[in-house]
Amino acid sequence: MRIGIIGSGALGLYYGAMLQRSGQDVHFLLRRDYQTIQKKGLQIYSCNGDFHLPQVAGYQTPQEIGTVDLVIVGLKTISNHHLIELVSPLLDTNTAILTLQNGLGNEELLAEAFGAECVLGGVAFLCSNRGEPGIVHHLGEGRIRLGEFSDGSSQRSNNLADMFQAAGVPCTAVSDLRRARWEKLVWNIPFNGLCALLERDVTDLLNHPESKELARNLMLEVIAGANAQSLKEPINGQEFSQQMIAFTENMDHYRPSMMIDRAAGLPLELRAIYAVPLQQAKAAGISMPRVAMLNTLLDFGETKP
Amino acid sequence: MRIGIIGSGALGLYYGAMLQRSGQDVHFLLRRDYQTIQKKGLQIYSCNGDFHLPQVAGYQTPQEIGTVDLVIVGLKTISNHHLIELVSPLLDTNTAILTLQNGLGNEELLAEAFGAECVLGGVAFLCSNRGEPGIVHHLGEGRIRLGEFSDGSSQRSNNLADMFQAAGVPCTAVSDLRRARWEKLVWNIPFNGLCALLERDVTDLLNHPESKELARNLMLEVIAGANAQSLKEPINGQEFSQQMIAFTENMDHYRPSMMIDRAAGLPLELRAIYAVPLQQAKAAGISMPRVAMLNTLLDFGETKP
Repeated sequence: MRIGIIGSGALGLYYGAMLQRSGQDVHFLLRRDYQTIQKKGLQIYSCNGDFHLPQVAGYQTPQEIGTVDLVIVGLKTISNHHLIELVSPLLDTNTAILTLQNGLGNEELLAEAFGAECVLGGVAFLCSNRGEPGIVHHLGEGRIRLGEFSDGSSQRSNNLADMFQAAGVPCTAVSDLRRARWEKLVWNIPFNGLCALLERDVTDLLNHPESKELARNLMLEVIAGANAQSLKEPINGQEFSQQMIAFTENMDHYRPSMMIDRAAGLPLELRAIYAVPLQQAKAAGISMPRVAMLNTLLDFGETKP
Repeated sequence: MRIGIIGSGALGLYYGAMLQRSGQDVHFLLRRDYQTIQKKGLQIYSCNGDFHLPQVAGYQTPQEIGTVDLVIVGLKTISNHHLIELVSPLLDTNTAILTLQNGLGNEELLAEAFGAECVLGGVAFLCSNRGEPGIVHHLGEGRIRLGEFSDGSSQRSNNLADMFQAAGVPCTAVSDLRRARWEKLVWNIPFNGLCALLERDVTDLLNHPESKELARNLMLEVIAGANAQSLKEPINGQEFSQQMIAFTENMDHYRPSMMIDRAAGLPLELRAIYAVPLQQAKAAGISMPRVAMLNTLLDFGETKP
């Protein structure tokens, strides 16, 4: 399958590399890493085994990539104002677009521009960071849950899941993408935000009992918001929040991407991860006061002193 | 009147200096400023006019002060484990103790040790900082509302209010000290905490509309907590929170004491300003989720990375 990766950060590079290693024909739109990857290829340091791709098809414009069978979008949502112009040159009649971006609102943007029928979304539970140019650190996890934006099962989503599986990426197709997206937010909203705000990693946070309780309360608010979204099956608040805490306790001093971005002075994905979920919850009659407060505190940090 | 000042920070030094200037016989327990004040006296730079006291009675132990008619307590509440031993040597049969400390729980501590009948409390709206040793900056405000811990009016509290007034400190005696304490918390809880957490001053905060709204919502939670405490007269939430916002808008880039303490790596008065109010509200059936969240975020910052 001819695949184009738009947004080659840690996520785009990691999944692209896994797919290329499994024999897929992968083409990366690169910025920061272009020169290094052209010269030295792409190095993945992974908890599942390191590997190196000496030959990588890297490009500086989407036009050079040309049309593909599948676009995988890994772009930071803060760059979504470029999303349509970056994806557009890769599209042929039957091209599928899979956005693995954070938060809510990304499939809607793509569907608006290119039609709902070509859009899939996926949530990635991936602990990864970029190192020096041409280097990605894969610290843990990596599984993807993907599905049709138009809801329901499809042969296409099953095939994509099989493709990721064959590449060594645990992947399942889901029939309720909206539920999967909200489930991901149950983790992202507390841990990305609290770690960015407090400049401390998930392990430090969970070692402070009151902060662990706060993370749990944030999760319960998100789950209440999720369960107001006409999901096919509601999320069990107590059980799922407990699972997410246990999952996080297995991460050894993991620094969420938002924490890294804040420390680097980069803008945060507040719209996709906080503002749109708050809007959707509010539209369904659910207030999430702690989530709103966290969003406000983070947003204030985006203003300059 | 022979007056002993226990806790000679910006607040204790400022009010002590004002009283001494008006002719009262004031004795300061000093630590950091002892040497300088012995040598050079005490300098007040005040928005109402600077003044200098060349002769100041400073001491290094409370025993040297001896008994007084009035103890004024300005100690940081984080040092309350020393409060009883510091105040005790100053007490005679009729000595009154007036605590101007922050938050809740201070009168109770004094009453437990020395009897409720000798305890008064006051809330001070004072914008002041310490400068170099021997120097206090009075930036604005300064009014005090004081009353009997045992509640109700008294000749004693009226006399103390008159004494402060005569010293140029706007002061009123109140018959409901509990209400006055909670009213002060309506300001302290949002602004001390948010400025300390975000490391930004009150003006920056109020210039961010969402943070201003958050400050307002925190105030409304505190007022709900206050109104569950059997006050003689409830606090009008809309009106009082609006007043407090307007009052704060008049402060030009003021840095609350908690913000200064956090920046200096000093411990914060979280127990008196957050934990005890949260307990008292909870005991009255009122939850203050945003206040609890702010307390948790601040408390986490007290743990070391």
